[in-house]
Amino acid sequence: MNELTLQSPFMKIKLTKNAYGKNAVNLSKITRHSDRHEFKQISVNVSLQGDFETAHTIGDNSKILPTDTQKNTVYALAKEHFNASIEEFGLHLSNHFLSNNLQLSEARIEIEEHLYSRLSFGNTEHPHAFISRGDEKHIAIIEQSRQGIKASCGIRDLLILKTTDSGFENYIRDQYTTLKETADRILATKCEVLWNYNSSQLDFTSLYNAIRETLLETFAGHKSLSVQQTLYAMGKEVLKKYSEVDEISLIMPNKHHILFNLAQFGIENTNEVFIATDEPFGYITGTVSREV
Amino acid sequence: MNELTLQSPFMKIKLTKNAYGKNAVNLSKITRHSDRHEFKQISVNVSLQGDFETAHTIGDNSKILPTDTQKNTVYALAKEHFNASIEEFGLHLSNHFLSNNLQLSEARIEIEEHLYSRLSFGNTEHPHAFISRGDEKHIAIIEQSRQGIKASCGIRDLLILKTTDSGFENYIRDQYTTLKETADRILATKCEVLWNYNSSQLDFTSLYNAIRETLLETFAGHKSLSVQQTLYAMGKEVLKKYSEVDEISLIMPNKHHILFNLAQFGIENTNEVFIATDEPFGYITGTVSREV
Amino acid sequence: MNELTLQSPFMKIKLTKNAYGKNAVNLSKITRHSDRHEFKQISVNVSLQGDFETAHTIGDNSKILPTDTQKNTVYALAKEHFNASIEEFGLHLSNHFLSNNLQLSEARIEIEEHLYSRLSFGNTEHPHAFISRGDEKHIAIIEQSRQGIKASCGIRDLLILKTTDSGFENYIRDQYTTLKETADRILATKCEVLWNYNSSQLDFTSLYNAIRETLLETFAGHKSLSVQQTLYAMGKEVLKKYSEVDEISLIMPNKHHILFNLAQFGIENTNEVFIATDEPFGYITGTVSREV
Amino acid sequence: MNELTLQSPFMKIKLTKNAYGKNAVNLSKITRHSDRHEFKQISVNVSLQGDFETAHTIGDNSKILPTDTQKNTVYALAKEHFNASIEEFGLHLSNHFLSNNLQLSEARIEIEEHLYSRLSFGNTEHPHAFISRGDEKHIAIIEQSRQGIKASCGIRDLLILKTTDSGFENYIRDQYTTLKETADRILATKCEVLWNYNSSQLDFTSLYNAIRETLLETFAGHKSLSVQQTLYAMGKEVLKKYSEVDEISLIMPNKHHILFNLAQFGIENTNEVFIATDEPFGYITGTVSREV
Repeated sequence: MNELTLQSPFMKIKLTKNAYGKNAVNLSKITRHSDRHEFKQISVNVSLQGDFETAHTIGDNSKILPTDTQKNTVYALAKEHFNASIEEFGLHLSNHFLSNNLQLSEARIEIEEHLYSRLSFGNTEHPHAFISRGDEKHIAIIEQSRQGIKASCGIRDLLILKTTDSGFENYIRDQYTTLKETADRILATKCEVLWNYNSSQLDFTSLYNAIRETLLETFAGHKSLSVQQTLYAMGKEVLKKYSEVDEISLIMPNKHHILFNLAQFGIENTNEVFIATDEPFGYITGTVSREV
Repeated sequence: MNELTLQSPFMKIKLTKNAYGKNAVNLSKITRHSDRHEFKQISVNVSLQGDFETAHTIGDNSKILPTDTQKNTVYALAKEHFNASIEEFGLHLSNHFLSNNLQLSEARIEIEEHLYSRLSFGNTEHPHAFISRGDEKHIAIIEQSRQGIKASCGIRDLLILKTTDSGFENYIRDQYTTLKETADRILATKCEVLWNYNSSQLDFTSLYNAIRETLLETFAGHKSLSVQQTLYAMGKEVLKKYSEVDEISLIMPNKHHILFNLAQFGIENTNEVFIATDEPFGYITGTVSREV
Repeated sequence: MNELTLQSPFMKIKLTKNAYGKNAVNLSKITRHSDRHEFKQISVNVSLQGDFETAHTIGDNSKILPTDTQKNTVYALAKEHFNASIEEFGLHLSNHFLSNNLQLSEARIEIEEHLYSRLSFGNTEHPHAFISRGDEKHIAIIEQSRQGIKASCGIRDLLILKTTDSGFENYIRDQYTTLKETADRILATKCEVLWNYNSSQLDFTSLYNAIRETLLETFAGHKSLSVQQTLYAMGKEVLKKYSEVDEISLIMPNKHHILFNLAQFGIENTNEVFIATDEPFGYITGTVSREV
Repeated sequence: MNELTLQSPFMKIKLTKNAYGKNAVNLSKITRHSDRHEFKQISVNVSLQGDFETAHTIGDNSKILPTDTQKNTVYALAKEHFNASIEEFGLHLSNHFLSNNLQLSEARIEIEEHLYSRLSFGNTEHPHAFISRGDEKHIAIIEQSRQGIKASCGIRDLLILKTTDSGFENYIRDQYTTLKETADRILATKCEVLWNYNSSQLDFTSLYNAIRETLLETFAGHKSLSVQQTLYAMGKEVLKKYSEVDEISLIMPNKHHILFNLAQFGIENTNEVFIATDEPFGYITGTVSREV
């Protein structure tokens, strides 16, 4: 075996995947109507793929659109093109980057909207004062390549719970089982949901609100035998009602509320007092699809 | 100089302040009515002061109520005594610790309530499904000593903003000034407010909701010349309306939304597109009191 | 069109992917030698895939090993089997779950080790006192299916920087470009690196330490024309040196340190004073592979 | 009682305390020696007190130095005056603000230094590559008023632990006690320590390093009967050794490592396998002073 053969494995090292972009482009926009303002706050992540091998191998930046320029572009285009939904703004951004940068094979835009409610006093909505709706975020993900566009949408950090209509029984028992079966427990989850749209010409805002409502209503009304069953019911209901959606993925971490053992102090705990825990936590995921 | 003199400074070292307790006792409670459930989630901090010098100096634990026992006590007493407000539960806890532990001079109970809204579908409230209201927390602080009780209450992480009726002008200019004066900016803050009550026999829940509403309404309606002026207006309005409150402190970090310079791209930014920033941030604090 | 046709799309909805498990099983272990203790702290994520369709569709839990039992199993097996590397413990765990649960098709174990250094005073190592090494974590990921085992290993939250030997020039300029070219900037990143091993019979601890050292040394010594080039150099060097590794992925967020404009105050800033920013940030990713 | 009397309480509302400033001024600085670079990264909080009543009551900003200008000032002065310790830079900043703003009664500067280690390969230190030392921060607090200067210094987020020489026994038992006594437990804490200096003319860097070493060595060597006793020993040792310090405060949250009950699975847990928990946690605080 000669030296060339020995070294040859090292000759074959190469870049197989890569992407780059700017994350956390935090932008707020006021739309000023005569009688009221609209306010939106978003964080944009831009990620570009394409013909960037020489950037990695020899430091040739001639095809690199700097992430700083990507950031500027988001702010510049927001003035004219961020008027309605984050989905539409994402589509505009992905199209801009692909159209103006022939070296790109794909542009991925992820927009996370931080939600605010308009303040109201009595029955009167205030024209320009708002309050945060908390951790829950509305997200849009646009993946545009030379072959086409994939538009997805979702909800992040949606913290919901129900105090009954949830049990967990008849599971496997082995030598490490200590969990007690229960027909009545708290079901709490900070879930993330992501669904695709089979078109990019939709009334995104109405659809988002309707799908979110369907998810909440299914969660609330379900007689849950497990997180898995509730997850599937939520996904299935969205596919049943919205023909615009072909696939939906749900991540439902189980934020356990554990019954506190009051019996040791001679007190009966009739499913009233719980330890709320963050860790460890059950982590349940599933994807529900429309077969084609 | 003899050795005694040399050492004597070290003889005078002593414990001058101390406190200990259990933090983050995370508890949730369901109250089961025939037609609906109530759900509360709280985090309790217990902090005890007293005659603990020998615990520090010689490791004598004979007067130490373990923090683990403090935790158990919170869960045990929640069954019967956490029915209404966190203020009342805090008062019960502080009284329990002081009454049962003669070595204590003071018990401080801080309770932070994580807020949930009942889910509604159509016009119907769901009997047992809830959604988080986000970062905003309701807090109660009870400081009970052998001399008396101080009850305080407040709001933490209240993220509010207004898109106009806020300016900042006519400030000092020096060699390091670059800020441009503006008569129309976004005023955004994630504020913390804490007020005392001059009694411990109050309808705490009604008062809390009313004071929160007054704070929001004053913030929204104020023609702000500075964060300082808005802070003062909010505090003053609470003292004017609620004779149960003698002092109110506000911390109002200025979550800057900075006008993005679109002019460099030949685009006019008529107060529409902003960079939302977390750091650095202005930090404005003030206490407003009723003089006695 | 009959009702069956109308409904038929809904008949075709099905579960296409799913996994469940317990996350954040936080475990610490002391190994007691006669003259010194070893201390390890880890967080284990267990994720199981298999024949769980009826759990989702009809709430049949008969094939579900509860996540609580998974947690107990981790603690129980740690006593005997967590002695050396997290990679070996992960392999033991994945094998345990697959061997004892025929309904499983795959078990994924991710272990994150929180790193501690032994305290030393003078030249003497303390036998049982330790200090955290901070955010940096050592991670092992074992994915075991009925077909075989994939063992990966990596580093998370490795915050490193260099104050020179880094530039960024000759990039694309368009109408939104404002970034100034520089031949001398700070290069800082909180990177995540993950590589596979082409065997599960290795001296994992020695390899990990050696690969980490190679990554650091390549980062430090590289004359960087871009983050992309440095990322590639780091990956390539690992593949060149370690035949046990076939593929390595790096995520290198660019933690920008932006030169502060002191000229506006008549002060020259000769690359000395910078604004350290968290957001927005460049996000550079790449995978380097050995061709087969 | 006439209306004037009724209203008079509201006339007496006034601003009783206030402060404002800029927080999280994140700054990094390179000092370029011929053979090596030094790198420092800090976050500065500026807080000013003074004659600001009219700013609050009528929106008069004529005495307000904007927080934006405070931020600029920190960067501008860093060029010439941030060369050695954060304590000296803090003293320079507080003096600058007080000297140039007669309306101020006090300037408080808090600087948090994010710590880095120089990378070394073999026995050779790298001239310009660094790695984060993690969460631990060195802090300096300068409070300068027209009456004088108070300089304090400390450590934040110092995560240390010992695997033996720690017990907790002979404490109070009551009806809510479930904790088992132990003569051998893990003692872990993420502590914060703050001490004053009785002079502002000191070799701050050497003192800081020496005091930190004393704290670590006392923690490691102490035969602990309680966190309280260890806390006191650490504080006392600093006062004994460093006449420059008159008072030291320690916050030592008890990061519990709880023995996992393996007996339920027929396995003996000889103090080896623990559940590492974040919440709830014991919170132990104390101040040790030199009597005057």
